[in-house]
Amino acid sequence: MAGSTFGTLFRITTWGESHGRGIGVVIDGCPAGLSLQTEDIQVFLNRRKPGQSRYTTARQEADTVEILSGVFERKTTGTPISLVVFNKDQRSRDYSDIVSCYRPGHADYTFDQKYGFRDYRGGGRSSGRETIGRVAAGAVASKILGELGITVTAYTRSIGEISCSSENMELSRISSSPLYMPDAEAEERALLFLEECLTNQTSCGGVVECVVRHLPAGIGEPVFDKLDANLGKALFSIGAVKGVEIGDGMAAAKAFGHENNDQYTLENGKPVKAANHAGGVLGGISDGSDLLVRAAFKPTPSIARPQTALFQNGSCGEIRIHGRHDPIIVPRAVVVVEAMTALTVVDLMMQNMSATMGSIRKVYGMPEQN
Amino acid sequence: MAGSTFGTLFRITTWGESHGRGIGVVIDGCPAGLSLQTEDIQVFLNRRKPGQSRYTTARQEADTVEILSGVFERKTTGTPISLVVFNKDQRSRDYSDIVSCYRPGHADYTFDQKYGFRDYRGGGRSSGRETIGRVAAGAVASKILGELGITVTAYTRSIGEISCSSENMELSRISSSPLYMPDAEAEERALLFLEECLTNQTSCGGVVECVVRHLPAGIGEPVFDKLDANLGKALFSIGAVKGVEIGDGMAAAKAFGHENNDQYTLENGKPVKAANHAGGVLGGISDGSDLLVRAAFKPTPSIARPQTALFQNGSCGEIRIHGRHDPIIVPRAVVVVEAMTALTVVDLMMQNMSATMGSIRKVYGMPEQN
Amino acid sequence: MAGSTFGTLFRITTWGESHGRGIGVVIDGCPAGLSLQTEDIQVFLNRRKPGQSRYTTARQEADTVEILSGVFERKTTGTPISLVVFNKDQRSRDYSDIVSCYRPGHADYTFDQKYGFRDYRGGGRSSGRETIGRVAAGAVASKILGELGITVTAYTRSIGEISCSSENMELSRISSSPLYMPDAEAEERALLFLEECLTNQTSCGGVVECVVRHLPAGIGEPVFDKLDANLGKALFSIGAVKGVEIGDGMAAAKAFGHENNDQYTLENGKPVKAANHAGGVLGGISDGSDLLVRAAFKPTPSIARPQTALFQNGSCGEIRIHGRHDPIIVPRAVVVVEAMTALTVVDLMMQNMSATMGSIRKVYGMPEQN
Amino acid sequence: MAGSTFGTLFRITTWGESHGRGIGVVIDGCPAGLSLQTEDIQVFLNRRKPGQSRYTTARQEADTVEILSGVFERKTTGTPISLVVFNKDQRSRDYSDIVSCYRPGHADYTFDQKYGFRDYRGGGRSSGRETIGRVAAGAVASKILGELGITVTAYTRSIGEISCSSENMELSRISSSPLYMPDAEAEERALLFLEECLTNQTSCGGVVECVVRHLPAGIGEPVFDKLDANLGKALFSIGAVKGVEIGDGMAAAKAFGHENNDQYTLENGKPVKAANHAGGVLGGISDGSDLLVRAAFKPTPSIARPQTALFQNGSCGEIRIHGRHDPIIVPRAVVVVEAMTALTVVDLMMQNMSATMGSIRKVYGMPEQN
Repeated sequence: MAGSTFGTLFRITTWGESHGRGIGVVIDGCPAGLSLQTEDIQVFLNRRKPGQSRYTTARQEADTVEILSGVFERKTTGTPISLVVFNKDQRSRDYSDIVSCYRPGHADYTFDQKYGFRDYRGGGRSSGRETIGRVAAGAVASKILGELGITVTAYTRSIGEISCSSENMELSRISSSPLYMPDAEAEERALLFLEECLTNQTSCGGVVECVVRHLPAGIGEPVFDKLDANLGKALFSIGAVKGVEIGDGMAAAKAFGHENNDQYTLENGKPVKAANHAGGVLGGISDGSDLLVRAAFKPTPSIARPQTALFQNGSCGEIRIHGRHDPIIVPRAVVVVEAMTALTVVDLMMQNMSATMGSIRKVYGMPEQN
Repeated sequence: MAGSTFGTLFRITTWGESHGRGIGVVIDGCPAGLSLQTEDIQVFLNRRKPGQSRYTTARQEADTVEILSGVFERKTTGTPISLVVFNKDQRSRDYSDIVSCYRPGHADYTFDQKYGFRDYRGGGRSSGRETIGRVAAGAVASKILGELGITVTAYTRSIGEISCSSENMELSRISSSPLYMPDAEAEERALLFLEECLTNQTSCGGVVECVVRHLPAGIGEPVFDKLDANLGKALFSIGAVKGVEIGDGMAAAKAFGHENNDQYTLENGKPVKAANHAGGVLGGISDGSDLLVRAAFKPTPSIARPQTALFQNGSCGEIRIHGRHDPIIVPRAVVVVEAMTALTVVDLMMQNMSATMGSIRKVYGMPEQN
Repeated sequence: MAGSTFGTLFRITTWGESHGRGIGVVIDGCPAGLSLQTEDIQVFLNRRKPGQSRYTTARQEADTVEILSGVFERKTTGTPISLVVFNKDQRSRDYSDIVSCYRPGHADYTFDQKYGFRDYRGGGRSSGRETIGRVAAGAVASKILGELGITVTAYTRSIGEISCSSENMELSRISSSPLYMPDAEAEERALLFLEECLTNQTSCGGVVECVVRHLPAGIGEPVFDKLDANLGKALFSIGAVKGVEIGDGMAAAKAFGHENNDQYTLENGKPVKAANHAGGVLGGISDGSDLLVRAAFKPTPSIARPQTALFQNGSCGEIRIHGRHDPIIVPRAVVVVEAMTALTVVDLMMQNMSATMGSIRKVYGMPEQN
Repeated sequence: MAGSTFGTLFRITTWGESHGRGIGVVIDGCPAGLSLQTEDIQVFLNRRKPGQSRYTTARQEADTVEILSGVFERKTTGTPISLVVFNKDQRSRDYSDIVSCYRPGHADYTFDQKYGFRDYRGGGRSSGRETIGRVAAGAVASKILGELGITVTAYTRSIGEISCSSENMELSRISSSPLYMPDAEAEERALLFLEECLTNQTSCGGVVECVVRHLPAGIGEPVFDKLDANLGKALFSIGAVKGVEIGDGMAAAKAFGHENNDQYTLENGKPVKAANHAGGVLGGISDGSDLLVRAAFKPTPSIARPQTALFQNGSCGEIRIHGRHDPIIVPRAVVVVEAMTALTVVDLMMQNMSATMGSIRKVYGMPEQN
């Protein structure tokens, strides 16, 4: 059981349901002495807030974070940081259409099979609102990385068949883009495409990409806790993710060895990697170049179009899902991917601290020996 | 640190280097009362053995497994099962070309960066031989699943651009195929393609697919320990994997919601899923249909063609990798993917046992209550 | 780092400081289908509430628990249960005497050494209020055990030199006793003794004992996760505990083998253990008889008497601790010991569920084989 | 399940049974760059070897350790260190008297209850030989501590009622003492007492004490992973331990606050602790003074005297345990206590490395800020 905890040394535990009292996270293992205020976290939460554009849900929630513990005189104390966003929109409504129906593409059926019943209000624990805890914790992880000079940046790489071209990408435009797309031209087409999806009462999928810069070499533990393995788990743990890629990803399966190997070249007399097909990881350990990951999101399962669903009583029949739903998950998922990446990297950087006798001596102030 | 342990309740810890004394695994948490003999494990190891075809390395090792503990009178006792394969091929050779060179696509550089030095003999801990421990443990996991009527079957889905077509796939032919490909026609083309790779002194990548049948619904823990998240970690932890997909995988990002949702239909008056785009998982929990995963492997990094590499002294220059190397990793990785999948599934099935008060009462023999 | 999480399958994470926003706990891995209401938890919290007698602090706090998640229609859903007690008594006061002083017997110095600074208000994270989360979670664990017919009962075994005699113990009187002592005569003397401690501006220690009844045999994992090892950790994790005993405890070191071994005898023709020196555990696994543990608590470190303390600037000098403090920790710690014991037992009972192929088959509905 | 793994960052997994192929341990998370040879470990194993005096079993085993992985060119590589001691004494003998009998004080009954059957040869996994893995791993942990200037020293504090007096203790004599007792006079009496036990066909218990010197302040994680809590688990996980004490231990329960608080005094103008009742731990964190722990061992359960035991068929009757057995466990357990203490301390020192932003910056070479 369990399953709501992520990380070994920088460890988060999330809780909360879509229509319960609130959504929260406890961060255990945050180092002491990090300056931290509510605003540091709120800016991250604002990026996943609904109502950012007409393609994201209208539910107008403030999603205001509160720090309940672990911070004293604006600095982290080393003790657990408890963060909570109380649910404002808990108005009781009529769930009779969902109670006995397993919506296609949702976790209704599987929760019932696992637990014998479920909190059906707004998806309960399987709602997208569960990611609030991850994003809040990810903000803290990003702050730590920032202090070490490391940046984590996620963005929408593609929507449906429309993909940003590598040449047109300007990461500086992400924050001002309604779809968090770094390619203006692709975004324009994507907006039209989403309009079509709405007209057709359907939804679409897309890909989020994330790049980590200035990560030192040596991060990641061999064998099972490889940097890419932990990232794989982190990204697949986001609802709706169906594929994850590192570096060239699936395309590596179609490449030749002499193309795929990252050879070296001299740049200003200094040896540098001539390419980064590996995406910054070799043998599960960072190599000092940019870390590059991608996650493919399936289309939003809630669509206006009538569908044939299974009912609790064993029959099946047509259902219509009411209410307004995002035609795409991706833009709001961008900050979630960024958060999960930051959490993974911080945790492995902490684990790496005891990799050598040298760094143990460094921390405990012993003279360097042989 | 650490990193050589996988699983929570069914937990394995692997050890060993390519040219050390041997390779081994300790399985802790295997239930008592499973009948287990050396042969059960050896058949799995034989599938990853080199020398199966001319496209896999010539190193002729017996790779004979020994059970050192945890089995008494041919049954598991519930205590740790220690398995070892002693290395036969430890002949000392000249490593002078590798010692000071970081081979492209290998973990030489990253191990040195992490630990300050490395066991350079045959790749040390980052060698493919490390997977022996996983496969041995996977054999035990598969045996448990088999007793519960669950099958795990992996095979080569594609090699380079050559992919098995869904129509031609016969899973029954896998075991007799030198490339573990279920499509005879695709295999024929693949064999020619591999010949070309050898001629061109290069290597190629490919995709391994794995299907789990008769898995009960309800397996997988919500949020971070989702069935797909743990599988993602399991598969990305295999060296050379650059992409992982569940169900439709990356293609889901290009699909529409009305296509991608698995709707229901009546078959002989019984409601059944009309498709399995989800690959058997919703909300991180199995839905009772086939579980389908894929892993993309990069081309073998060791190629005969000269390459430009970084040296330990900071310079770079041309190197040639001597010896005979597989032009492809995939065929030998098939059983590794199968093993990691079985290990993941068994562990989550055990974790799921305490999901409800009902199953706790069942195990502790209490009368059913409300 | 980390350190605020306890348990593997039934896993709790606590957070909060004495004078922060509140104290809370997240329970992850509670089985679905347990009927649970606020009152079930509140009755446990009331037992550790200050102001129960004149020997416990006057701080009048309601300590009202709120359930923020994980319960739906009065039943646990299998998802994380977030419990919180908001601090009412956060009145800002003058801490200038504590800020720069390391009080003897408190964790002031060690927190500063570890983290570089500390939340000095009321002891911060090292305050006794931290146990609120444990007790709230322990109430849930006890409810589960209760449904399985298992009872966990803690009480004050001794205060200073005054110990309950085995003959006079009536467990039924614990709940009505101000000191939670089962021996009325001993309690009378203890009350006089505590009066003396107050007069002498000092404090005293004592022992809490806990008995678990109707625990099935077979609970506890061999080697490191022995039932007694996990209990040892659980009890030593309570601030102020300096010794833990199982069964005969320290006295076993002075016993002879023929006395200490629990031999069998016939009772009504049925073999029963003639004694329980082992305290219900052999080889780290429960043997089906009563589980008996004891924890020794040191005297309350805050005493009115002047003491010589170390100051942050490296000097030392006399300090006086103001305010009213309990002359003894023990009565309020009784429910904490009970909670930690219940948490340990529930977690190991869940872990034990996959100990044999037989119980796996039972849960997954497979026919018994072999 | 599981249970054979100890530690978070410095993590050991033991395996093996008394009369199986061997006993071993895998150490995962040992820092790279520690010089390590077989002899470093063998000297520890020799201290637990039987046949040291006439009061320990006659089974003459070499117990020779082999390093199977993780060491290259006499230095640890950062990858798992696999250590094994193959069992030499596996001569098949007649176990018919044990197979169907649950010996008093042994884990025969509880293993059968948990797993349905057991490896009855020499106690199987519950044999004292299981500690070989702990001691081998403890030797490595001690080596790391030694490089940091920290010493861990265990010795026999008491045997039966005979206790070393604080005044007479000379730690230097431990290694040459057959009973590992630092008080020569007490040892003399203890030897006579053990003679009596043998004559009386019984056994006796005793106490092992362990002191850690030069441990920096700040080690131990608040709340559940307190230094004393993890030590408590470590020591209670040793078979036969029935009580554990830190500092004054159980006696603290009888003390007054003004006595038990460690006040400060000036020594050569420098403030020092006037006493160490706390045993070096406050709030679960080391305070920089000597860490002092004690473990009480019950008498050896195997005694020559006839006993009444339970049989597998539900009857009970007299049994006689044949063969020669130690009349006391303590002398051979001294090194086990030392090993478990070293393992606990090393693991928490590694966990403490990420306690502050300052030490993270130190390891990753960032300039000190803020």
